[in-house]
Amino acid sequence: MSEVAVVGVGQTAFTRSCGVTIKELCFEAFKEALEDCNLYPKEIEASLICSAPEYDKQRSPAGAIVEYLGLNPQPTTYVENICASGTTGVRLAYSLIKSGLHDIVAVIGFQKMSELTSREAQERMGRGADIMWDSPFGLTMPAGYALYARMHMKTYGTTEEQMAEVKVKSSKYAVLNPKAMFQREVSLEEVLTSRVISSPLKFYDCSANADGASCVILASAEKARKITDTPVWIVGIGSASEPLSMANRTSFVGLNCAVEAARQAYKMAGIEPKDVDVAEVHDCFTIAEIMAYENLGFCNPGEGGKLVQEGQTYIDGDFPVNIDGGLLGKGHPIGATGGSQVRTIVMQLRGDAGRLQVKRAEIGLVHNIGGIGLYGNVLIFRR
Amino acid sequence: MSEVAVVGVGQTAFTRSCGVTIKELCFEAFKEALEDCNLYPKEIEASLICSAPEYDKQRSPAGAIVEYLGLNPQPTTYVENICASGTTGVRLAYSLIKSGLHDIVAVIGFQKMSELTSREAQERMGRGADIMWDSPFGLTMPAGYALYARMHMKTYGTTEEQMAEVKVKSSKYAVLNPKAMFQREVSLEEVLTSRVISSPLKFYDCSANADGASCVILASAEKARKITDTPVWIVGIGSASEPLSMANRTSFVGLNCAVEAARQAYKMAGIEPKDVDVAEVHDCFTIAEIMAYENLGFCNPGEGGKLVQEGQTYIDGDFPVNIDGGLLGKGHPIGATGGSQVRTIVMQLRGDAGRLQVKRAEIGLVHNIGGIGLYGNVLIFRR
Repeated sequence: MSEVAVVGVGQTAFTRSCGVTIKELCFEAFKEALEDCNLYPKEIEASLICSAPEYDKQRSPAGAIVEYLGLNPQPTTYVENICASGTTGVRLAYSLIKSGLHDIVAVIGFQKMSELTSREAQERMGRGADIMWDSPFGLTMPAGYALYARMHMKTYGTTEEQMAEVKVKSSKYAVLNPKAMFQREVSLEEVLTSRVISSPLKFYDCSANADGASCVILASAEKARKITDTPVWIVGIGSASEPLSMANRTSFVGLNCAVEAARQAYKMAGIEPKDVDVAEVHDCFTIAEIMAYENLGFCNPGEGGKLVQEGQTYIDGDFPVNIDGGLLGKGHPIGATGGSQVRTIVMQLRGDAGRLQVKRAEIGLVHNIGGIGLYGNVLIFRR
Repeated sequence: MSEVAVVGVGQTAFTRSCGVTIKELCFEAFKEALEDCNLYPKEIEASLICSAPEYDKQRSPAGAIVEYLGLNPQPTTYVENICASGTTGVRLAYSLIKSGLHDIVAVIGFQKMSELTSREAQERMGRGADIMWDSPFGLTMPAGYALYARMHMKTYGTTEEQMAEVKVKSSKYAVLNPKAMFQREVSLEEVLTSRVISSPLKFYDCSANADGASCVILASAEKARKITDTPVWIVGIGSASEPLSMANRTSFVGLNCAVEAARQAYKMAGIEPKDVDVAEVHDCFTIAEIMAYENLGFCNPGEGGKLVQEGQTYIDGDFPVNIDGGLLGKGHPIGATGGSQVRTIVMQLRGDAGRLQVKRAEIGLVHNIGGIGLYGNVLIFRR
């Protein structure tokens, strides 16, 4: 069976309000990805369109978007795993190619959150939690991750300062990423004194709603070698789910779905955590990045706070993580996030990351989570 | 590479109002499919959850459903191509198995349309058309298919009587299908004198909103042979899209996406239209079934009306079509429809269709359309 590679990547700037339609937003990311690998729309054999629904008036947006991108009559499918939608698209594109059904597939992720007020967006996101027993009682996204943060603090002694360190690191790299929404370095003091959103999580512990789109183009080995001199191979894929209801969860100090997805991906790739040279993890909240370190095996359970505090996840540390600003620095346009993470890793493995380049990056990892630890995808790439 | 078979199928009755949650609805179809092939939930390695969004309060329903079905921690993904969502799920399940990522995958389609008033549902469906230029000017689903009906009448002389014949046939078989919503034979006269919905389409030319769920379990060849003595093999898959905007379409006498999907599926299966022993086609409106005959090559363009009028698509004709009542007779719970079509073909090829059994059925075809001819999927099965 053919191996599968990423041959092209593209992304819009992530912004508070893009001022264009979702079709135009997707076009911008798609065009950049096509130019990245010198392909024409007619060469894209199928597409997967990834987002969370109910942010736009247009239903079944895949149809509207592929028409605008010139992708008819090629097949298209809308896929959704909330914030993990983008990497789910990559997983399905991989299987469409590996199965022999297609040779070149585009994964386009987008979200235009500025159509809604902040309160409306919060309500939509809340209904991604269990609507019978959880969301009606106030389990919004920040509240859900705050539960995990409290338990992590209680169990391991993790501190608010350690969580704040994650935002300090993110902001440091976001200012070097022209596509990131937040272009200002934030100090530890600023994080710690920002207003409380859901205790212990404060304003700067949270990622922000954004508008944006991303595109990842995948190809079979034969096509990839013709298209580019720098294919980036997908060598590991893991995916798992966790009960939606908080009452049915067995752990609040880590995400079971991430642990399981990582186990699958490492096994498929035949590597260990220490082999990862650069990683993008789903830091929707600062505590989420600390749990990701642990769930991915970059450190032992409970040592995540120390890992960032000691600088081990900075660009020159043992486990460079989110060296593009992460969700905290870039903004988090739900459906676009997974593709943006993949784009960063692909640029790192190509050696094209400029001032954000991690030295000797040969193996990269993407960790993308949907909902409050509901869906977990882990992808491993090799140059 | 492993071949892929359907090993288990299940379906709820399709009803006007089910009185249960979407989780319970899916459970009923899933349980029937599991019992059909003697599997336990833990043996299902991954699932695809198919529906159209915005009918339920629960967002990202995949998470809620797989928890209820006992499918954690296995991965799950929500997929949507409006009314073609179910067969899109089957196509992706096929690729997940064929790619080697999984061996057993469940495709669960559902819709609970009774949560909304008829007007609300119409508004939701309307926003599946282009929201900038089409739906605001009244292009609902019936209006869209009425455009095609008018052009088909003008171009080929197709008559309202011929369209009505499709409903007469459907109702005849629906009364023999205990899971169909409409359990009464309808006469030609009744169809022709029913109230106009969108001229020339009348009440009985239209399929109805419904509640329902379906489940299709697929497996690799190795697993399929262990699980069942009657695997039904997927031998052809085709999928295509058409511009969403009516202004960008090149034909109103047939669905380009169906023609293209059929071409791909026949080619992959290495068969011709005349080899099809039994078919399920997407008769969301009577004109849609007539166009399907033509787009699938069961007759020449313009001869579809005659084909049904001459009885060729009845159970003992040359091309038995919708010998379970079709969408017109069963009801059309959007996300559940594709899986229900697959279930009927699987039962036919197993020889388990009882009083609706088509003689010597060895090759079966499913034609499933999303939107107003927006997405087209064609699947070919062999016993």
